[in-house]
Amino acid sequence: MDTTAKKSLKLHKKFNGKLGIYSKVPLSKAYDLSLAYTPGVGEVCKIIASDKKLAKIYSIKKNTVAVITDGSAVLGLGNIGPVAALPVMEGKAILHKRFAGTDAFPICLNTQDSEKIIETVKIIAPVFGAIHLEDIAAPKCFEIEKRLQRELDIPVLHDDQHSTAVAVLAALINAIKIKLKLPSKRPGDGLKLKIVINGAGAAGLGIANLLLAYGFKNLILLDSRGALYSGRKDLQAEKKILSKKTNHKKIRGDLSICLKNADVFIGVSKAGLLKTHMVKQMNKKPIIFAMANPVPEIMPADAKKANALIVGTGRSDFENQINNVLTFPGMFRGALDNNVRVITQKMLIKAAENLASLVKHPSTTKILPSLFDKKVVPAIAKAIKN
Amino acid sequence: MDTTAKKSLKLHKKFNGKLGIYSKVPLSKAYDLSLAYTPGVGEVCKIIASDKKLAKIYSIKKNTVAVITDGSAVLGLGNIGPVAALPVMEGKAILHKRFAGTDAFPICLNTQDSEKIIETVKIIAPVFGAIHLEDIAAPKCFEIEKRLQRELDIPVLHDDQHSTAVAVLAALINAIKIKLKLPSKRPGDGLKLKIVINGAGAAGLGIANLLLAYGFKNLILLDSRGALYSGRKDLQAEKKILSKKTNHKKIRGDLSICLKNADVFIGVSKAGLLKTHMVKQMNKKPIIFAMANPVPEIMPADAKKANALIVGTGRSDFENQINNVLTFPGMFRGALDNNVRVITQKMLIKAAENLASLVKHPSTTKILPSLFDKKVVPAIAKAIKN
Repeated sequence: MDTTAKKSLKLHKKFNGKLGIYSKVPLSKAYDLSLAYTPGVGEVCKIIASDKKLAKIYSIKKNTVAVITDGSAVLGLGNIGPVAALPVMEGKAILHKRFAGTDAFPICLNTQDSEKIIETVKIIAPVFGAIHLEDIAAPKCFEIEKRLQRELDIPVLHDDQHSTAVAVLAALINAIKIKLKLPSKRPGDGLKLKIVINGAGAAGLGIANLLLAYGFKNLILLDSRGALYSGRKDLQAEKKILSKKTNHKKIRGDLSICLKNADVFIGVSKAGLLKTHMVKQMNKKPIIFAMANPVPEIMPADAKKANALIVGTGRSDFENQINNVLTFPGMFRGALDNNVRVITQKMLIKAAENLASLVKHPSTTKILPSLFDKKVVPAIAKAIKN
Repeated sequence: MDTTAKKSLKLHKKFNGKLGIYSKVPLSKAYDLSLAYTPGVGEVCKIIASDKKLAKIYSIKKNTVAVITDGSAVLGLGNIGPVAALPVMEGKAILHKRFAGTDAFPICLNTQDSEKIIETVKIIAPVFGAIHLEDIAAPKCFEIEKRLQRELDIPVLHDDQHSTAVAVLAALINAIKIKLKLPSKRPGDGLKLKIVINGAGAAGLGIANLLLAYGFKNLILLDSRGALYSGRKDLQAEKKILSKKTNHKKIRGDLSICLKNADVFIGVSKAGLLKTHMVKQMNKKPIIFAMANPVPEIMPADAKKANALIVGTGRSDFENQINNVLTFPGMFRGALDNNVRVITQKMLIKAAENLASLVKHPSTTKILPSLFDKKVVPAIAKAIKN
């Protein structure tokens, strides 16, 4: 176990987890209780009963998000179940607060059945202003998100699909500016670059969908069995749809084959899958986003040695961190503030563009702003607007 | 609308509800995120996956309670639904924190079907160390509580049934000491006093059950149709059981009839139901606990004029406040700290005795300690122990 893991265990043990509840109202004397609780609270209940929309004024609904998982696809750990997933959900919750002032609470579901997940989320929704789905395995995550978006009157977003995608698109916009030496914000030529996405789980499919919506034309997706192509027999619904929109040459084969003449590698797969000889098979000065956590598909130093122009990973200890922590706090902040019911691809693209534009002069070592840049959350939030 | 109601509305609007989330761990620099979130958190997930019991050490489960309602019986407002119930649940949550340091979060269920409530609570249970059921209508509250106590591995308590009951028993123990001028802690004679409980909802039935368990022998319960007696045809299960344990003379009739020769009136019913002429029909120097909220069954001044010895209400602006805020924070504190799975009647009796004993010299104007007495929560918590 490394030092960070040991320190993390110690920290979690010391505080018994990471979040607590506080009262926003005074409770020091008897009359304070008459206002916060009975008898005063009766009038507050009555006014909400008369018009449910007023819950957004008189209750926590306005600023409260549920971070919901079934523990079926947690980090790189896989299906560890709802109880073991709690530390990650607590982490997401406090990041919501830290970066966007949102009150988020973790909900870990003791079921992995899609219908029961959907029903439960609908039943517990009244308290919340938005639903943040997290670490739910593909392909059921797609159906669950779609159904909840349709059946609830609050925004629902599966973080794994969309938050990394927005960060990747922002990173790619700036990386292409450097690669093509374009000063423009929408580098038309860049849309023709050949992009290979390794990993076709929630993140990979979310990234592919967003890049296609943005206008990229030459994508290949790979899952653990190789390239997705139209007609491949073993594809579930979401992969099937994407197999028709990507890989127009119907290339079959593994990562090594697909990377030939590629300009961009986007990895949301596993540690060490990208070898230096594969990077050398790509077009000159490729862009490498190796985002497997905690160990990337290729270490940045190795990618650079193989002539990569720009290397990004999910990690804070390397340059060019491409992490959903950059994006999800602002996305939910915007949805709550702007009363957005459904977060659209158009909003996500605008969020990525806003994020990218915060870096005035992108360089190979800085394509995205820092997590701690206070301009990040407002820039993203203002994009999530009807 | 009175001043308190207006001020309460203003307060809830100003803060958008009453509770917020805070991070217990530092999040100021990049390495803080590596400990609270990835990559460090992976090890915390793994250790819990290896042994779920460790969630009580490494996550918020240890100190976190869900305050759960379906909004079917909120305050005196009735079935106002889950959204309008939220301000009360928020209130309960911050009182947990204020008095016992417990992190409680409100969950308002968008269903009033018993089976769905039970299933939903079981599905969302992993995050919580205990379940506080609140403002769920009788009779379904009994089945829901029982089933959840049986089917979950954490303590489940329906506040309406048990918290007021513990406060009432404590108040009664001390009131009887005064009435019978007994210095002893368990006044044997007092157990024969005739006690009339007006109201047979969750609170009334909970009080009746606890007083019977304590040893009181002469109880009559009334619902809106009059006295419960063995053989009455219109009784649901819980009332039927109690009709056999109470009212041994099978008195039929309304409150006025039942109160003849009674020593104690316990009201959990409606404003103004107890008239002065009825108090005069009771035995000399009766004990009157008129706990309808916010307006009691009889105003204390009127009861005193009709020769009541001791008058208690649920309100903080009269003497002898008998309120579940005195009891529920300590009960959950004890259950969490002492790893209690099922809170038994025996524990509740001990809690009431401990609460009563905090008033060294009970008087007609002081039968219970103040809500703000710091000895209250520890005294109750130590009773909730296996």
